[in-house]
Amino acid sequence: MKQTVGSQSISFKNPVYILESASIVGKKEGDGPLGQYFDLIGEDPMFGCKSWEEAESTLQKEAALMALGKAKVQKQDVRYLFAGDLLGQLIASSFGLVDLNIPLFGLYGACSTCGEALGLGAMAVAGGYGEQVLCVTSSHFGSAEKQFRFPLEYGNQRPLSATWTVTGSGAFLLGSTETKKTRAKITGYTPGKIVDYGIKDSMNMGATMAPSAADTIYTNFMDFNRMPEDYDKIITGDLGKIGQVLLIDLLKEKGFDISKEHMDCGIEIFNGEEQDTHAGGSGCGCSAVTLSAFILKQLEEGCWKRVLFVPTGALLSTVSFNEGQTVPGIAHGVVIERR
Amino acid sequence: MKQTVGSQSISFKNPVYILESASIVGKKEGDGPLGQYFDLIGEDPMFGCKSWEEAESTLQKEAALMALGKAKVQKQDVRYLFAGDLLGQLIASSFGLVDLNIPLFGLYGACSTCGEALGLGAMAVAGGYGEQVLCVTSSHFGSAEKQFRFPLEYGNQRPLSATWTVTGSGAFLLGSTETKKTRAKITGYTPGKIVDYGIKDSMNMGATMAPSAADTIYTNFMDFNRMPEDYDKIITGDLGKIGQVLLIDLLKEKGFDISKEHMDCGIEIFNGEEQDTHAGGSGCGCSAVTLSAFILKQLEEGCWKRVLFVPTGALLSTVSFNEGQTVPGIAHGVVIERR
Repeated sequence: MKQTVGSQSISFKNPVYILESASIVGKKEGDGPLGQYFDLIGEDPMFGCKSWEEAESTLQKEAALMALGKAKVQKQDVRYLFAGDLLGQLIASSFGLVDLNIPLFGLYGACSTCGEALGLGAMAVAGGYGEQVLCVTSSHFGSAEKQFRFPLEYGNQRPLSATWTVTGSGAFLLGSTETKKTRAKITGYTPGKIVDYGIKDSMNMGATMAPSAADTIYTNFMDFNRMPEDYDKIITGDLGKIGQVLLIDLLKEKGFDISKEHMDCGIEIFNGEEQDTHAGGSGCGCSAVTLSAFILKQLEEGCWKRVLFVPTGALLSTVSFNEGQTVPGIAHGVVIERR
Repeated sequence: MKQTVGSQSISFKNPVYILESASIVGKKEGDGPLGQYFDLIGEDPMFGCKSWEEAESTLQKEAALMALGKAKVQKQDVRYLFAGDLLGQLIASSFGLVDLNIPLFGLYGACSTCGEALGLGAMAVAGGYGEQVLCVTSSHFGSAEKQFRFPLEYGNQRPLSATWTVTGSGAFLLGSTETKKTRAKITGYTPGKIVDYGIKDSMNMGATMAPSAADTIYTNFMDFNRMPEDYDKIITGDLGKIGQVLLIDLLKEKGFDISKEHMDCGIEIFNGEEQDTHAGGSGCGCSAVTLSAFILKQLEEGCWKRVLFVPTGALLSTVSFNEGQTVPGIAHGVVIERR
C-alpha cells in the first residue's frame, strides 16, 4: 500500500493517533510563559540524581511512565520505543529507558529528534508493525552545556544569538485505534534533508537551522500541494528570534509568506528578556514539551485544526566544531490535525 | 496490514530485497581473512582527508555511492537514508551523507546500528513509504579510539578481552521490486531491547553485549517458532571470542544450542593472533562490511539459505563510563534469506 506523496513526503492512508502524552520540565521552564501547561515541574534541576546525565535519564523515564499512566496502558502493551537525546551515544535515552524493557530504536537528529521519533513512530504504526509505540525525547541544560560548551562553573558570557537548552522531556503514545482521550492525529510527514549553508557559528544555531527548516516546509507545501494558510500554525522547534527572521525571509524568496502562521517553540517557552535566555529555548526537549503541553491542547480545544510541527536540529559535535567544520541543519515536518 | 509476529518481531508480508551493496575497508581489514571479498581497500587510513572523522565520512560517502553505482540507481531515486556511526552526534554520517541530498534518519545503536538501519529501512519499504532506501553505517579505528579511549600516540596496552574497531563502511540499497542483480531478501526482523547485566568493563565489550544478543536471538526463535537449525548461520556483529562463549552458554541455559550455527563478524574479519586484534573486530562497520562482502556472497552462491544477522551494540559513552555507569547492550536481529 503506497503511502508516499510528492518528492519526499508520506501521506498516511489511515491517520496515526496521538493517544496520550506527557511533559516534564525544570523550574526555569515552569517559570516561563507556558508554565501553567506542563504536567510536572521539577524544582530540583538534578531530579534527585547525582549527575546531569542521570537527571536527564530520569526525566525521560518519568515522562514515558506518565504518558503510559495517563493512557492506562501497560508498558508491555507498547510494541516499540523511538527515542533520542543530544548527548554523545544517546546515554540519556539508554539509561533512562532500559527499565521499560521495550525494544528500542535509538535516534539522533539533534534538536529535530522529536520530529524524527514521531515520524518513524507513526510510520511503524501505519505500516502495521505495532498497535502502540512510544516516542520520547529529552534535553537538559546542565548535561547539554557540559556536552557542547563550557563547565557551568566557568560562567561564560553568551552572545545574544545563543539559545538556552530546555530542561525537559516529552513522551507521546501513538496508536492505530482512536480512544476517547485521543489528543490529535498525525496525517502526514516530511522527513528532512541535511542542509548546509556553510555557517560555522555554534552560538547562532538559529542561523544554522533556518535553511533546513525552510527546505522541509517548502517541500511539505509542494508535496501536499498546500499553502501556508492551509495550516493554522507552522511551528518550528528552536530557531529562536534570529532563526525566525531568516526562515521567513528564505520562504519569501521561494514565494511563500508564513509570517502569519509561524510560531517557534523556543521563542514561546521562555520570556527571553526577563529570563536571560537570549534568542530562545532549544534542545530535543524544547519542541517535545511544547507539543505535549501547549500545541496538542490548542488542537484539542479547537483553536487550531491543522498544524505543521517542524523540530529543527543543528548537526555538530565539539569534535566537528573544533576541527573547523560547518554546522549543517536538519528539520523533520510532522502534520498534526485535530482528531 | 498487520506485519507483526510474536512478542516483538516483524514478519514482512512481502520480502524486502537487498538490491545491491558495497563495502570499503582499511588496510588492516584488507590484510585479514576476508580481504579478498571487499569491494575496495584503502591503503591510506586517512582516505585522503585531514582528520579521522573526515576519513570516516569519506568512507560512508564512497560506500553509498558505490552501492548506487553498482545498482545503476541515481541518488534522486532513493527515497530515504537510514544511517549512523559511533561518533558523538553522528558526525561521520552527517558530514559524509550531506551531499547525497536524500532525507536522512540518523540512527544510533552503537555497533548494532547496521541491524537497526536494515530493520527500519526494510520497515519503510514494506510499509509503502518508498520503492528504494539506502542503509549506511561505518566505523574507523582512529576516530573510535579518539572518541572512546586514548590518543593513538599514547600507545596504551590493551587487555586480551578488548576488540579492535574496524575501519570500514557498508552500504545497502533496499527495494520492493526484485532485480536480476538482487543479492538477498529480508523476510523478518527482531528489534532488540536494552539488556543490562551490570558489567562495567568497557574493555570487555563481548561480555557486555552477549546478554542482549542472547535475548534477541531467543526472542527471534520464540516469535518465529524456529530452532537454531532453521538458520544456516546465526551471525553476531562483534561479540569476539569471549562474547561468543558467553552467548552460547546463555542460550544453552535457555534450552538452545547454537554452537554449530554461530559465527561472529568480529572473529571472522581479523586473524586475531597474527594481527594483534585480541578478541576480534568491532564497530558499526564490522558487521556491515562482513554482511556486504561475505555473508551476502554465501547466500548468493547457495552455500546458505537463511541466516539470522544480529549486529550487537554496547551502550556507553566516556561520560557514562567515567560516571561509573554500567555498559548495557542491545542487538537487532535481521532475517536474511537467499532470493
